[in-house]
Parts: sequence; C-alpha cells; structure tokens
Amino acid sequence: MQTPGVRALLFDVFGTVVDWRGGVIRAGEDLGRAKDLHLDWPSFADEWRGRYKPSMDRVRSGDLPWTKLDDLHRASLEDLLSEFGLTGLTEEEKDHLNKAWHRLEPWPDSVPGLLRLRERYTIAPLSNGNVSLLTAMAKRAGLPWDLILSAELPRHYKPDREAYLTSVDLLDLHPEQVMMVAAHPDDLHAASSFGLRTAYVHRPQEFGPAGEDPQPPSDLPFDVAAGDLVELAEELGA
Amino acid sequence: MQTPGVRALLFDVFGTVVDWRGGVIRAGEDLGRAKDLHLDWPSFADEWRGRYKPSMDRVRSGDLPWTKLDDLHRASLEDLLSEFGLTGLTEEEKDHLNKAWHRLEPWPDSVPGLLRLRERYTIAPLSNGNVSLLTAMAKRAGLPWDLILSAELPRHYKPDREAYLTSVDLLDLHPEQVMMVAAHPDDLHAASSFGLRTAYVHRPQEFGPAGEDPQPPSDLPFDVAAGDLVELAEELGA
Repeated sequence: MQTPGVRALLFDVFGTVVDWRGGVIRAGEDLGRAKDLHLDWPSFADEWRGRYKPSMDRVRSGDLPWTKLDDLHRASLEDLLSEFGLTGLTEEEKDHLNKAWHRLEPWPDSVPGLLRLRERYTIAPLSNGNVSLLTAMAKRAGLPWDLILSAELPRHYKPDREAYLTSVDLLDLHPEQVMMVAAHPDDLHAASSFGLRTAYVHRPQEFGPAGEDPQPPSDLPFDVAAGDLVELAEELGA
Repeated sequence: MQTPGVRALLFDVFGTVVDWRGGVIRAGEDLGRAKDLHLDWPSFADEWRGRYKPSMDRVRSGDLPWTKLDDLHRASLEDLLSEFGLTGLTEEEKDHLNKAWHRLEPWPDSVPGLLRLRERYTIAPLSNGNVSLLTAMAKRAGLPWDLILSAELPRHYKPDREAYLTSVDLLDLHPEQVMMVAAHPDDLHAASSFGLRTAYVHRPQEFGPAGEDPQPPSDLPFDVAAGDLVELAEELGA
C-alpha cells in the first residue's frame, strides 16, 4: 500500500459506485411500459444528468438557497417532462420517477469491493446526493457503509471545501488520513487541494456504451488508480 | 402495531443500546491491571457519567462553544484523575481510557433486535455521542445502523429541539413518521414535544446491580413500551 496512515475512504457515488445512467433508463422504461409512452430514455437520462452540475452551481453561487439534490432533480425533471412532451403524469408518478436516483444499481464489483475495504477502513459515501437518498440507495442495494456522509451535512455541494473538510472533521481525522475515491478527476483534484489522499477508479461505462471512455489519466497526482473497487481493495491491502 | 406510518427509528445509545457502566468499569480494570492501580472503578464510572449532563448543559447554555462529546469526556476525565489521585498516566493511556466510550458493549438483545427492526424500518442512533464515537462503536460491536445521526450534526445536544428535528429533516420525513427509542423518559418527553413518536425500553441494569431499577412508567404518554429491543421488534411488527 502506498498510503500509510489512511483510516477512512470517502466515495463519490453517482458513476463511481452506482450506474446512474442504466438506473434512470430502467425507471423510464418501466414508466413507459406502464403508461404506453414511447420515449428516447437514454437521451432523457443524459439530459437529466446534464442539468445536475448547473443546478448545483446555482446553489454554490448563492443564486438559490440550500436545496436538497432530490429537489434539484425534481425541478430539472419538471423542465424535462415539458421538453419531451410528457404531460399528464400524476404527482405520485413524478415522485416515483424522481426517486429513480434512490434505486440505482451498484456496479458488479462495488459491493464485493466495499465489503473488503470495510474490514480495514471506515467507509462512507461523500456524495452530493442527500442523506435520505443515500440511505435508501444503500438499504436497497446492500452498500455496507459505516456511516452516511453527504454534501447535505455542511450544506455545501462538492467541490466546495466544506463538503470535504466537514466530513474529515466528523470522522475526527486529519485530511491526510482520509482518501477520496472517485471516477471523476475534478472531484479528486478538489479533495487533493484540501489535503485528502485520492484514488481514481476507472468507470468506462458511466456514460453508456456510446459515451466517452475516459482513459485513466496517468499524469495526474492521484495516490492510487484502480480498475474497480475490488482492485482498489487489493491496492489498499484490504 | 399501534403506530402506523412510522418509517424510521432513532435510538438513544448510552444505556438504551449499550452498557456504558460495564464498559467503563472494564476499561478501568484493564488499565488497573496493566499499571497495578487499585481503584474503585464502579465509582469512577458513576462519577464520570455524573459529569455528562452538566458538561453538555454548559454547551447548551452557551457557556461553552460547541464541543464534541469526546472532548467533554476528556475534560471530565482530567478532573476525575486528579480527584481519584491517578497521576502519571501518559497521553496515550488517557486517550485510550477516554475512548472506553467508543468500546462499549451492546446489551445482549440489542444486535438481534436491531437486525429485525432494520428489515422494516430505517434505523439510526440519535445520540449525544459524536459521529466518530458512534461509528467506531458500531463497527466494533456490529450495530447494524443504516446511518449515523448525532447531536453533532446540528451541534445541539439533546434535549434541544434541533437534535431531533435536524434528524427528521435529514431523513426527509415528518416528525410523526419517526420514533425515538430510549430508556430515559426525559429524552422521550422532548421527542414527543417536537412531534415524534416514542418507544420506552426498560433497562434496569443501566446503573448496575446496586443502581436504581426504574419501573416502566405506566402513566406517561409513550406510544410503545418494551422490555428490550427484541420485544420492541415484536411490538412494531418487525
């Protein structure tokens, strides 16, 4: 292990631990079958995710007061339903579709990898998803977190400093004792700038079969790089 | 079940889920054997616990800024060591003794009861213990929490309103969908006053064999009363 002293691992969730795109498409297809709707659900999923960062940036900039991710997702969903001409859904149907983000499936290696990592480290999500979303997802998918950490606790979305350092403080550790694990270099760059260790996980399927296949960046200052969470457990001696 | 609509259970921890007195005595005895110290450890445990509420009240009143329970315990420990004439402990020994509160053992019914309750409800501690204390305790003792909630998140010790209602908000529930479970009527009275449901658990051994044996109060407005957490699971249909 190249990272002595690490005690806790914080995981980005959407894309790193679970397959958001596949889960949102599946929820759309379920709704489509039930209501006889014919829609390009992969595009719907991509457009929904496309609104994710801009909606959080409105909170980060102060343009919006603190708003849970469930509520940002819901506002984006209302826009999307109009754009895709999907009218006439009940409140209950919209709420169920919005909670597709609670029902995402882990990548096949996620649960086995986390179960190994948990033996040696304290493991928690550190996601922009709200606490109730992350809790429902973990319960349904069997993600064996020791605790749930979220941008909701300091009310600052990643990559704001508070999202990382509040988590470090709640763990009662120093930044260098905590490793951020993510498939997204921007998340890792932010974590690194605040003193955390970093592990890059390569998730070429995040954006689907036709999506971009990010190559593991070899020139970036990550402490560890792994192909999946089982490989990460190997790398970290767990 | 007399409480339809309940989705989540919040548990007081010290006394309700774990045996703080037995654990602190054991930690003291371990230290005593290692250092050839002869002390009345049961009295030591009782005196340490006796400083618990007064120390939190100094934070609740604003006399002290927010201070984690680990740090309140440590300040009380320094006083106690002087009082009991225990000098010459190293920093490491004092830290280890202070973390006796991280190593408390569950009552025999706690893990089996929680495992059943977890199938039907979201379960979390809602303790004045800090997040890292509750996380370490759960990992060591196998307490199967879905998430860790703590007075540390709103930085308000129970029975302050914020301790209960921040937890309800993080769960994205209404107060009447959340049940506080505790062996202490004052905790339940506070929870009830903020709209939560309440379950009383009878823990006659909390203060040891010579301690007071509180009778289950029959005239108090608790939704449920149970002899232990397995009985609570029965009562709540889990």
